[in-house]
Amino acid sequence: MRMRKKANREARLEKCASLLIDEPTRNKGKWKSVFKNDNPIHLEIGCGKGGFISQLAARNPDINYIAVEKCVDVIIMAMEKIMNFGIKNVFFISGDAGLLTEIFEKGEISRIYINFCDPWPKSHHKKRRLTHRSFLDIYKNILPCGGEVHFKTDNRKLFEFSLNEFADCGIKMRNISLDLHAGNFEDNIITEYEKTFSEKGFPIFRAELIF
Amino acid sequence: MRMRKKANREARLEKCASLLIDEPTRNKGKWKSVFKNDNPIHLEIGCGKGGFISQLAARNPDINYIAVEKCVDVIIMAMEKIMNFGIKNVFFISGDAGLLTEIFEKGEISRIYINFCDPWPKSHHKKRRLTHRSFLDIYKNILPCGGEVHFKTDNRKLFEFSLNEFADCGIKMRNISLDLHAGNFEDNIITEYEKTFSEKGFPIFRAELIF
Repeated sequence: MRMRKKANREARLEKCASLLIDEPTRNKGKWKSVFKNDNPIHLEIGCGKGGFISQLAARNPDINYIAVEKCVDVIIMAMEKIMNFGIKNVFFISGDAGLLTEIFEKGEISRIYINFCDPWPKSHHKKRRLTHRSFLDIYKNILPCGGEVHFKTDNRKLFEFSLNEFADCGIKMRNISLDLHAGNFEDNIITEYEKTFSEKGFPIFRAELIF
Repeated sequence: MRMRKKANREARLEKCASLLIDEPTRNKGKWKSVFKNDNPIHLEIGCGKGGFISQLAARNPDINYIAVEKCVDVIIMAMEKIMNFGIKNVFFISGDAGLLTEIFEKGEISRIYINFCDPWPKSHHKKRRLTHRSFLDIYKNILPCGGEVHFKTDNRKLFEFSLNEFADCGIKMRNISLDLHAGNFEDNIITEYEKTFSEKGFPIFRAELIF
């Protein structure tokens, strides 16, 4: 299904143009110079409308953030949030997680966030899940030794699949939650999606990985 | 709460006496001679009324089983099952999991089953949970390198705690299930307890550990 074309798409995109990195592969190995500082760089894969990244970046001005999202119409909304809040430590890339090793050098990203990604429920689509071992390989190739992935989902089957991928690949796990909102995990930033599902009584699953 | 004394307790115990190992520490390092063969020995901790161990042992005549249970009145029922089915490859120990290293040599047990153990929900009781790291240490000391623990529970919080203990202790996990009966895991032996909970719609959690 194609999304309906957003009103004033070009004009809105133009206003946020400074936040969108057009040819990200040209910055490979040089991302610190994009931010003009030496702060660590964290990545969100699939930022959606930017609810999570905007809160996270506002809370942590000493960390740089890059948000990746495939859909340009969605990324516009995320960029507008960052613009409106006057947040200075976020850039955006419109693209696919499969290309991350073309965009970042090994060790250039110190933490990756994956929130409520598409569960791709059909078994023959499992390679598209962002926690499939082929993606874990990609993350390993842009994180330093000890780099982290923080993963949240409301989808039990995706979480089960993911735990087994992490275990099979020998990736160290930490702070595993089978019902995040029932526990005492602090510092959780609740996404729009998470709020809706949690209010309906569905548990939220979460894990941290150490590469 | 004390259990009501079972009718004919002594007489019933007498009938199964050959299955109960009275002084198990005397067999440390010599369990193969108890079974009079060289088959691998698997252990169930907390066998309850013996529904699981009786089915498992009947299915696998080439494996020896030892079932541990604290409560003698419960162990009588388990032993009667084994007697009635004419199963020859099971012995019982009445005792506590904390004493296993006094009963078995390193490597003497090749697999441990833990099914629906007490979740000890209060935080100050967590050391009593059979998946607490102090128990994992005990299991490590009676299993060979590559020995396995197969763990099932209906208690989400216990499973969450357990996954974190396994991860923190660097124990390799495999075949993690967050809803065992919704998946396609074969060879599952359903305990009485599991049947009741599963029929009520509660998910059953399961994981295999490789030491």
